[in-house]
Amino acid sequence: MLREMAEQPEVLARLLSRRIDVGLQAPAGVIIVARGSSDHAAVYGRYLLELATRRPVALAAPSLFTRYGAQTDASGWLVVGVSQSGKTPEIVDVVERLRATGGHAIAITNDGDSPLAEASETVIELGAGAENAVPATKTFTAQMAAFAVLADALGDVPWAEEELGAVPDAVAGVLADPAGMADLADRWAAVDQLVVTARGWMFSAALETALKVRETALVSAQGFSVADFLHGPIAAVDPGAPVLALRAEGPAAADVDEAVAALQERGADVQLMPRVGGLPEALAPIAASVRGQQLALELALRKGLNPDAPRGLNKVTITR
Amino acid sequence: MLREMAEQPEVLARLLSRRIDVGLQAPAGVIIVARGSSDHAAVYGRYLLELATRRPVALAAPSLFTRYGAQTDASGWLVVGVSQSGKTPEIVDVVERLRATGGHAIAITNDGDSPLAEASETVIELGAGAENAVPATKTFTAQMAAFAVLADALGDVPWAEEELGAVPDAVAGVLADPAGMADLADRWAAVDQLVVTARGWMFSAALETALKVRETALVSAQGFSVADFLHGPIAAVDPGAPVLALRAEGPAAADVDEAVAALQERGADVQLMPRVGGLPEALAPIAASVRGQQLALELALRKGLNPDAPRGLNKVTITR
Repeated sequence: MLREMAEQPEVLARLLSRRIDVGLQAPAGVIIVARGSSDHAAVYGRYLLELATRRPVALAAPSLFTRYGAQTDASGWLVVGVSQSGKTPEIVDVVERLRATGGHAIAITNDGDSPLAEASETVIELGAGAENAVPATKTFTAQMAAFAVLADALGDVPWAEEELGAVPDAVAGVLADPAGMADLADRWAAVDQLVVTARGWMFSAALETALKVRETALVSAQGFSVADFLHGPIAAVDPGAPVLALRAEGPAAADVDEAVAALQERGADVQLMPRVGGLPEALAPIAASVRGQQLALELALRKGLNPDAPRGLNKVTITR
Repeated sequence: MLREMAEQPEVLARLLSRRIDVGLQAPAGVIIVARGSSDHAAVYGRYLLELATRRPVALAAPSLFTRYGAQTDASGWLVVGVSQSGKTPEIVDVVERLRATGGHAIAITNDGDSPLAEASETVIELGAGAENAVPATKTFTAQMAAFAVLADALGDVPWAEEELGAVPDAVAGVLADPAGMADLADRWAAVDQLVVTARGWMFSAALETALKVRETALVSAQGFSVADFLHGPIAAVDPGAPVLALRAEGPAAADVDEAVAALQERGADVQLMPRVGGLPEALAPIAASVRGQQLALELALRKGLNPDAPRGLNKVTITR
């Protein structure tokens, strides 16, 4: 896992320098089809693609198609299938069905010869190389980068060209500085629960950090939008309970500050993820996800777990 | 909370007998705008509306509009705002913005004079009466019923007319039989974590049950789709860990059975929610959500908590 995490600056640099051509320039809307970690990249991608296309973006409910025979008409829509392996039968199935109604399919996958790639008009290959550890790391941040490349091809993006080029260095900076997350892992080595919260752009990184900690370090971690969290789920936060807040400078920062204050008032052990320097808010989640990987890895090591092979998990999701 | 739960058959009977007229019959797509519990009703509603309209349904990311100035074009789209109070500023704001671009707005709210109702062309008033307990109960199931009425006005629904009429009786049957969930509350009176899992139609009820248990009984509960759960989050389930599985007869039942078997193999304390009789799969989540309310209430009572006023929560969500 650590070795694959270390490859991220190189993978991201290669991917972010690509420019692609999308056959459909003014889609009626966008549907993203994904599961698990890929679904968290999709949460990031939906923000980017809704801003770029100025059309609504929907995250598909796969069971509607595979269990209940939905005949959703996607004619004129962009359909983005996201799967690291490109082999998850359910994702391929849904993309094929939507394409059959006239959707324009784009695959985001690490395998350009996979069934998902074959089912799509356009393929954004991650080029991340083999990922052997079960927890997705370099393929996850590469999926986020692929959404950035796709958004750039479709319309306006919330960054300047040179800011995109700064992502690999920012990620390298995070990797060279694991101390912040190692300290948190020391602090939380014995916890069995963790809340991860954020808002806006950083929400995707919060969801992914919670999942990574959950599956790698076997902690019952849960990600929340700050906006939802404050009006219900926060009730269950006991004094001393660990909460990780993700904050980037920008319009959502004040919301995170408000949540941190409310959590401190309850006596929760709320900690801010060390800030990621040099990136605008819309790109910060890529580097923040790497900090989340560091926390998951360090927590697993402190618990004597093998981070490469969490108990009972397989690499390829086989949901049909 | 118990008194308001008991009003559900009457509220549902009144609401489900309504037939409405929607000004826009063939929308380009549907956007649902909601937060918290209402967002779980929206998860249910998106299944119904996608089947009825055969167009993709998107759940809005409010911060895209209120924090990042998205200019999403909703012309020709149906925009469904869901808020019990109708007063959550953020929900009203997003609906107004989408309507300004040409969206046709429908309000699902308990207050026909609220800002949300005023911002909408069509109002489906819940008619649930005042809800004083902080945990939403009758307004939540009424929101689900409102989505059923809306779907019926827009296209095909996955039930026969008389099956819709059977919902109030099925809910009355659940309320008259609290023993099943009280037994579970006895079993789990001391747990500090709970996983609630389901797939397809029942997924919405699983999310809502987890939230209700979390905010009312202060248990760190988390809802998962079975399809996501098996390929990652299940790793963190220790032997003896409590898991509630929601299962209805239908195409997703085999997926739930598979998850139950995998959880049993790990030694988890997995329990099936007692089945709800007399309803097709697409309506069962309404009655199942009432069983979830029973579990939240009974757990809270066993912990000496006041279910009407969970610590630190207010009734009206004030996110801006």
